[in-house]
Amino acid sequence: MSKIKELFNIQYPIVQGGMIWCSGWRLASAVSNAGGLGLIGAGSMYPDVFQEHITKCKQATDKPFGVNLPLIYPQIDELIKIIVAEKIPIVFTSAGNPKKWTAFLQEKGIKVVHVVSNVKFAKKSEEAGVDAIVAEGFEAGGHNGFEENTTMTLIPQVRKAVNLPLLAAGGIATGSGMLAAMSLGADGVQIGSRFVATKESSAHDNFKNEIIKTQNGDTILAFKKLIPVRLIKNNFTVKVQELQNKGASREQLTELLGKGRAKKGMFEGDLQNGELEIGQISGIITKVEPVETVINSIIIEYNQKLLTLAKL
Amino acid sequence: MSKIKELFNIQYPIVQGGMIWCSGWRLASAVSNAGGLGLIGAGSMYPDVFQEHITKCKQATDKPFGVNLPLIYPQIDELIKIIVAEKIPIVFTSAGNPKKWTAFLQEKGIKVVHVVSNVKFAKKSEEAGVDAIVAEGFEAGGHNGFEENTTMTLIPQVRKAVNLPLLAAGGIATGSGMLAAMSLGADGVQIGSRFVATKESSAHDNFKNEIIKTQNGDTILAFKKLIPVRLIKNNFTVKVQELQNKGASREQLTELLGKGRAKKGMFEGDLQNGELEIGQISGIITKVEPVETVINSIIIEYNQKLLTLAKL
Repeated sequence: MSKIKELFNIQYPIVQGGMIWCSGWRLASAVSNAGGLGLIGAGSMYPDVFQEHITKCKQATDKPFGVNLPLIYPQIDELIKIIVAEKIPIVFTSAGNPKKWTAFLQEKGIKVVHVVSNVKFAKKSEEAGVDAIVAEGFEAGGHNGFEENTTMTLIPQVRKAVNLPLLAAGGIATGSGMLAAMSLGADGVQIGSRFVATKESSAHDNFKNEIIKTQNGDTILAFKKLIPVRLIKNNFTVKVQELQNKGASREQLTELLGKGRAKKGMFEGDLQNGELEIGQISGIITKVEPVETVINSIIIEYNQKLLTLAKL
Repeated sequence: MSKIKELFNIQYPIVQGGMIWCSGWRLASAVSNAGGLGLIGAGSMYPDVFQEHITKCKQATDKPFGVNLPLIYPQIDELIKIIVAEKIPIVFTSAGNPKKWTAFLQEKGIKVVHVVSNVKFAKKSEEAGVDAIVAEGFEAGGHNGFEENTTMTLIPQVRKAVNLPLLAAGGIATGSGMLAAMSLGADGVQIGSRFVATKESSAHDNFKNEIIKTQNGDTILAFKKLIPVRLIKNNFTVKVQELQNKGASREQLTELLGKGRAKKGMFEGDLQNGELEIGQISGIITKVEPVETVINSIIIEYNQKLLTLAKL
């Protein structure tokens, strides 16, 4: 636990996942101000928008914050230039090969954390020299691994395979969930869904209200053949399933996906035709709250639950 | 935790899952003798074989043991007669409606526990009057729910929805895993895969040796459209996936499945053409050990890990 706090210079080993269309400067700065580590999700930002979020985040907090950078981002060189120029201390990379940028960023004094969904990539990340790993389970919202490893089974297997500081992600929204993750061998957690349903997230209010209505069983891992993504079930996911059940090709699925589905759903609030990326644990989220309330309640529940656990 | 120990009159809140072809009297009595609750898996037994296992289990232990009874079993009336005549104290039911048999069994003084994979059926089980619930996640081996709820997200949601004693299942094979389950709100755990890989399980040695070779990512949830079942990947699962990717009908899948696949794989040791039911956590199992060693190591690891968890 202290590994993560020291690595990022934060109070609690809680990282807010960098999520497209949901995690701009307001959310990231609120999480950092509340003692966690906020991340600006660069994946949905053009370079000029990204620059603006960095500038505003710096104005809103004097605590460390980071950036989540999908390595398949088309204008990645431009984002990296901004990250270096702005002396962003921490970069979480995902969806690509950690060998490509890790050494370069570290030479500039930047800590690099890579997100993985299986043991193989956890080992590759360690070989690439990253400072820490996020291991994210099948229950997580948004983009997801092909192997369907759940958090409960992935964390102990990654813990056994690598020695790096390890953040657990996928299915964690409460203090009890965080305590479970630490029991499994994590040094800290990355939380997504719960932070989407905060006042400070940039998700559309329609989406936030949909999250708190979501019940057990209301999400689905869609596009398993193309690029798996966990979404709230809606008209769009029904269409995806119909097409998949007919044995659709990647091309047919890509055509149905089209462009801008994620923005349409999460940022513009089109609940029926957009992609609504959220995790299975959304079924337990019942309120849209300020970030500070969320973090405090996680800490309180964690400490209370810990006191109830007795020796066998 | 004490709820489960009192309900079953056992030393540790650890239940060995009733698993077809793997959990006969040897495994069940060994688990009960080691302080857990052993279950005879009735699903793969004709009534005469079942009777024999009960008789032998009683000879091998004076501790309580139970039976796992899939409610879709064709000769269920005959098995129930044996259960009542033999005064089996505990029955775990699965794969069917808990309303049908719960009251009848309870009138005979038998405790009834129902296995569920979502919140809806947890509530239905509570309405049916069961004594406890097993909530089993997507990572579990063997038959599985359609909704793909993982243990990490299912347990807290079921805990919130029902007041009954709750056993967590799916992805638990070690003391750390058990501690995680208790953190999520479970009162005890049901463990499957780890007990298949014991000296006392009736799994074929080929299957046991295959389990300890299994790495992260080596299982798959097959037959998602028909009746989802988690298996070790082999020639058979490759064929299933090929057929599914072509948009196969339920009839085509049923034909491929054929008869006796589970026996062929798990009991007869045909690793390429049989069904090898195992959970995702098998990637962490590296030895075939006696049951007593397994249970002791779970208890030791649980207690050690608990000591390392600090307040936030």
